[in-house]
Amino acid sequence: MIIQPTEKLSKIKEYWHPYIVGELNENYVKLAKGKGELIWHSHEHEDEMFIILNGTLMMDFRDKTVSVKAGEVLLVPKGVEHRPWTENNTEVSFMLVEPKQIRHTGDLVTEQTVEELEWLD
Amino acid sequence: MIIQPTEKLSKIKEYWHPYIVGELNENYVKLAKGKGELIWHSHEHEDEMFIILNGTLMMDFRDKTVSVKAGEVLLVPKGVEHRPWTENNTEVSFMLVEPKQIRHTGDLVTEQTVEELEWLD
Repeated sequence: MIIQPTEKLSKIKEYWHPYIVGELNENYVKLAKGKGELIWHSHEHEDEMFIILNGTLMMDFRDKTVSVKAGEVLLVPKGVEHRPWTENNTEVSFMLVEPKQIRHTGDLVTEQTVEELEWLD
Repeated sequence: MIIQPTEKLSKIKEYWHPYIVGELNENYVKLAKGKGELIWHSHEHEDEMFIILNGTLMMDFRDKTVSVKAGEVLLVPKGVEHRPWTENNTEVSFMLVEPKQIRHTGDLVTEQTVEELEWLD
């Protein structure tokens, strides 16, 4: 099964709202766009992988901020607080590989939380 | 932790020899280059994910052949026989996300099999 991220991303209209595009063992492969900022959160039991496709993802940690460009990959270890955002309201798009049970805003549930992830056709 | 695949790939000299560049829950993130062909094989218990970074990966299945270009992703479900190769001896580079216990040539052990995967610095 071939996933074409560029074509899939054109269907995504919301920011910080991951859609499922594939299954990989106990994980989902997801695509999302970001603009502005998401809340601070952490995932107690799951490492998280961001593969940046377009734009630049900024990630705040409690002790530093990193900038992750298209073509680069960011691994966020379990339990580490983080907040993704973008500079100057630019758009970023990325692929995620995450255990099926993960909630994208971690232990927090806010108005940005998407409780039931959907498959993107 | 940020992985810069382009910089890491410059250190890889062998073909069809994956190197570990990160850990993601029960998986390793790996980088590899390919040229020519690998053997037919399958993984009884593990789905496999190929994220194509440069070039084009050809993948034979018993009933078809697919061509996966840079920026595209190929998911190979567990148990499905496959053989990766490249056209005209071109080079392809790709990232893999795979369960830690997987062997890259599946149930077969040949001279192309790398038994002990190493971390790429």
